[in-house]
Amino acid sequence: MTSLHIRELLVDAQGCAGPLDDPEALEAGLRAAAEAVGADVRGQCVVRFVPHGVTAVLVLAESHILVSTWPEHGLALVDILLCNAAMDPSRAWASLAGVLRPAEVVERAIERVVG
Amino acid sequence: MTSLHIRELLVDAQGCAGPLDDPEALEAGLRAAAEAVGADVRGQCVVRFVPHGVTAVLVLAESHILVSTWPEHGLALVDILLCNAAMDPSRAWASLAGVLRPAEVVERAIERVVG
Repeated sequence: MTSLHIRELLVDAQGCAGPLDDPEALEAGLRAAAEAVGADVRGQCVVRFVPHGVTAVLVLAESHILVSTWPEHGLALVDILLCNAAMDPSRAWASLAGVLRPAEVVERAIERVVG
Repeated sequence: MTSLHIRELLVDAQGCAGPLDDPEALEAGLRAAAEAVGADVRGQCVVRFVPHGVTAVLVLAESHILVSTWPEHGLALVDILLCNAAMDPSRAWASLAGVLRPAEVVERAIERVVG
């Protein structure tokens, strides 16, 4: 059994100038981010809340990429989890950051090697 | 504008004896976990991979609960993110743990207060 190398990046994107309340724009941003890292999209769920906010997730062959937004706070939380050591979550984030356009970010990276 | 209190719990569940390759059982486990914490399910995406593995996510009014599994390693990664300070992610995890039945867990809790 081959070992498993999982790379995760959590990003708190603050002061976002991007379209935090636009589910289509966010989904497109996630798809571009997945493409940027060469990930394979297998499913999706996008929900817009009333009065504001979106949670959008793409399920990938390599796990998932997800964004939740609170437009009233200019906040987006991003989770990129990839179980392919050759795929760098930072590359997906760089793509998505171009859509969210945060003023500040807090990044948390987690590496897991199993087996 | 009211402040936002976001509670997140990431769990690495190792040595799981539960049904890591069964999408219906995992979805039911997520729904029970959401119910345990009083969260409101608004959407879902469940994908089973070939030859093995599942990623299942429920989008909640309070954000999301997600599990990705690697049955060949007995591993499940869980992310529970709730933007309601009255909802304790640990309660949702306690419910889901009863389904996954891990031998060992690594928990990472993140608290965010915004505004």
